[in-house]
Amino acid sequence: MRYGPILFVISVTMIAMGDLMLLPALVGAFSSRHDAQPFLNAAATTLVPALLLFVVSRRPDVRLVPRQAFFVTTIVWLIAALAGALPLVFHEHLRLTDAFFESMSGITTTGSTVLQGLDTLSPALLLWRSMLQWLGGLGFMLMAIAILPLVGVGGMRLFRSESSDWSDKSLPRTRDIAVRIAWLYVSLTALCGVAYWTFGMSPFDAVNHAMTTLATGGYSTSDQSMGRFASDGVLWTGTMFMILASLPFVLYLESFRQGIRVFARDDQVRFFFKLVLVVVAVGTTVLAYQQNLPVWEAVTVVAFNVVSTITTTGFASTDYTLWGEFFVAAFVFLMFTGGCSGSTAGSLKAFRLQIALHLFRIQIRKLVHPNGVFVARLNGKRVGDDIVSAMVGFSLAIVLTVVLVTLALTALGVDFITAMSSAATAVTNVGPGVGSMVGPAGNFAALPDPAKWLLAGAMLLGRLELMTVLVLLSRSYWQG
Amino acid sequence: MRYGPILFVISVTMIAMGDLMLLPALVGAFSSRHDAQPFLNAAATTLVPALLLFVVSRRPDVRLVPRQAFFVTTIVWLIAALAGALPLVFHEHLRLTDAFFESMSGITTTGSTVLQGLDTLSPALLLWRSMLQWLGGLGFMLMAIAILPLVGVGGMRLFRSESSDWSDKSLPRTRDIAVRIAWLYVSLTALCGVAYWTFGMSPFDAVNHAMTTLATGGYSTSDQSMGRFASDGVLWTGTMFMILASLPFVLYLESFRQGIRVFARDDQVRFFFKLVLVVVAVGTTVLAYQQNLPVWEAVTVVAFNVVSTITTTGFASTDYTLWGEFFVAAFVFLMFTGGCSGSTAGSLKAFRLQIALHLFRIQIRKLVHPNGVFVARLNGKRVGDDIVSAMVGFSLAIVLTVVLVTLALTALGVDFITAMSSAATAVTNVGPGVGSMVGPAGNFAALPDPAKWLLAGAMLLGRLELMTVLVLLSRSYWQG
Repeated sequence: MRYGPILFVISVTMIAMGDLMLLPALVGAFSSRHDAQPFLNAAATTLVPALLLFVVSRRPDVRLVPRQAFFVTTIVWLIAALAGALPLVFHEHLRLTDAFFESMSGITTTGSTVLQGLDTLSPALLLWRSMLQWLGGLGFMLMAIAILPLVGVGGMRLFRSESSDWSDKSLPRTRDIAVRIAWLYVSLTALCGVAYWTFGMSPFDAVNHAMTTLATGGYSTSDQSMGRFASDGVLWTGTMFMILASLPFVLYLESFRQGIRVFARDDQVRFFFKLVLVVVAVGTTVLAYQQNLPVWEAVTVVAFNVVSTITTTGFASTDYTLWGEFFVAAFVFLMFTGGCSGSTAGSLKAFRLQIALHLFRIQIRKLVHPNGVFVARLNGKRVGDDIVSAMVGFSLAIVLTVVLVTLALTALGVDFITAMSSAATAVTNVGPGVGSMVGPAGNFAALPDPAKWLLAGAMLLGRLELMTVLVLLSRSYWQG
Repeated sequence: MRYGPILFVISVTMIAMGDLMLLPALVGAFSSRHDAQPFLNAAATTLVPALLLFVVSRRPDVRLVPRQAFFVTTIVWLIAALAGALPLVFHEHLRLTDAFFESMSGITTTGSTVLQGLDTLSPALLLWRSMLQWLGGLGFMLMAIAILPLVGVGGMRLFRSESSDWSDKSLPRTRDIAVRIAWLYVSLTALCGVAYWTFGMSPFDAVNHAMTTLATGGYSTSDQSMGRFASDGVLWTGTMFMILASLPFVLYLESFRQGIRVFARDDQVRFFFKLVLVVVAVGTTVLAYQQNLPVWEAVTVVAFNVVSTITTTGFASTDYTLWGEFFVAAFVFLMFTGGCSGSTAGSLKAFRLQIALHLFRIQIRKLVHPNGVFVARLNGKRVGDDIVSAMVGFSLAIVLTVVLVTLALTALGVDFITAMSSAATAVTNVGPGVGSMVGPAGNFAALPDPAKWLLAGAMLLGRLELMTVLVLLSRSYWQG
């Protein structure tokens, strides 16, 4: 492997992260806290080695072969998480373990936190956390568009429609799409922020929550998460924009030309909406009945917290695990759903659930009509063996990650439910687990250090669609 | 659908069950309890309507079309469970819910129990419970050989080797195999009983445990399960025979001609042994380290309880959930493994785990070599799309069953861990769950009634490889 281009990409990542730290530094300089210094220190710590590396490694040709892309992608996210941790180290004097956990949870848009006292934390640092998520969400989408299809990870091939064959490896076209998606992401964030502001959030809270909503990340500016701002207007704004952030972003671009029906015609989008509707309807019924709540009140909180989990955002408007064991179970299972591919959402994602359900139905029909020929289709296209095989591999990777991380955490003394829900919420990039420690009312601070590193690793695995990282652990990768 | 042949099969099932009740009646008559009467009452209650039905329904031609086989198979197991419940109703005055749960847990070789005070229970009734499991195990294997391949359920096609192409639909050949397998089952049971007796069990306990060991069922004659008889000799006997009972029984028949190497050559058997070895090695290390136990002591109890769970037997030599949260997690995950296909073991089974792992590895290799062609093979045969599709459908069916049953149980007020482990242990036919209520030291008596019916249903689903039952719930089955 040629390390020149890799070092170059690392240096560019570090320069970007270092430069971005100047924004919270600016906020810190103008806020009443006057806490620009830690951000400037972090920026310097990042930029000095970065610029040296940039000068040393600079190569005229930085084209990467697909094989290298796995390594580079993984290392870029690792470096970004490390750099992102520096402001937390310099500002809050967090230990590296906690700072890295928080930063990784940020850029992977997971949203688990080890911090307490968010309500009184420096605005500059709160902004940095929100920025990590917002940038992580954008970075993930661009990666899913520009890199993953080249290396064969993710299910994007399945959703490439005739009219938008943007992943034809023509670089200018891909760049064009990337720029448009970035603008769309910015615009939706702005819209979301204005809506939060309209419904009573302060401008600062609105900006932060808009960023973490569009990223389906879930960081908040309060220990109570959205519970601190829980007016109906804020909750429904959150619910709506979490859903918007979980739709395939290329469909927005298509809809500009072809109208809103591109969403209605998309199999994955339809399945995602059906899933959300069914789960919200069942949850509302159970909650309204068990707690004797008015339907409107029940549907507002159920929709917000359920959509927050399905879309892998991880906001909470209240400690929903206190609603009873039914909801504890439901929220753990919902971690494994996810939004649509091509969005900022993580986890299995709607299309994989759909493929599995299709195969199940076909299996049933085959039993009734042994000589019948049944073909699974999504958006009119045959779901080929390669897609099925990738789906099985991906699902097994998620399950094995949850199993192994759970076992490791329990070996470290963590109880089963906390361990399993932490492992699940990390690899699916949701955020909160269940149980008093890591549930929506708790935080991850009290976990043992090795547990935090493991969970940070699981977050990275989940965000890079597992295979991107796991391939690096295979012998054949390093042999070939 | 023609109901004549179906009624005939039902009547034959009932006659068989009624006749079998005469064996515990005989034991009851000669034991100090003199409790033959309840069994005779149960037999009469079964036989009178059965004989009437037999006379009314008798048809010269009882050949069933494959479509009918789904319905008949499901109804036969239901009727057998109902009939099996009668001695419990007449003898212990159990309510139908408890008796049906116990009987279904018996014939599906699950081994969950609602009874307390087994140590002082009537020997005749203990024998009846063991008989239910032993017959259930035999019935399952014969079904897997004679019926499931005809209707396309289960993975048996994959393991039909040239030299033993017994499922070629030639009825006499299948009958021949069935008879040999039954004799093998009887002989292994006898061997196991002699070994238990040798190592200190009473002849009565030895017979009962031999029956429930070979069935991979797990009913015991003591509330402490195998803890009451936990000498090293008994535990290793149990471990060995649980493993023997989890190997494909046709391989025994082949080994008579071709020698023991047929086992060593079989991919599934090799994978199963590797799985057992790895899990036992890890578990022994953790237990010996955490509890500061001598290795021999640790390996003895770990091997027994781990093999008991992997093979879906469900014996316990001690309350292993007290070994710590690592083992709680491990035992829950191990429920989803299972023995080899073609044995009495339930759950996912080794070959499905193998296929999933193969696809995962292929996925990794494809990422490294995008133009490479990789084919999953088991026993030298290509794992076709139909097999993969069936595997996905089956796995999804298990997961959805666990999810839905867990949600239903939690809605009934059961806590999450108890609910999830009960659902899992039922559909995988293991037996004990985790948690104080349904764990290896508890029993299922305190669960609410609807929970017991749901779990009994999950046991039936699991034993009939899910699809056999689920196909009956599809519209296309009743339309065609």
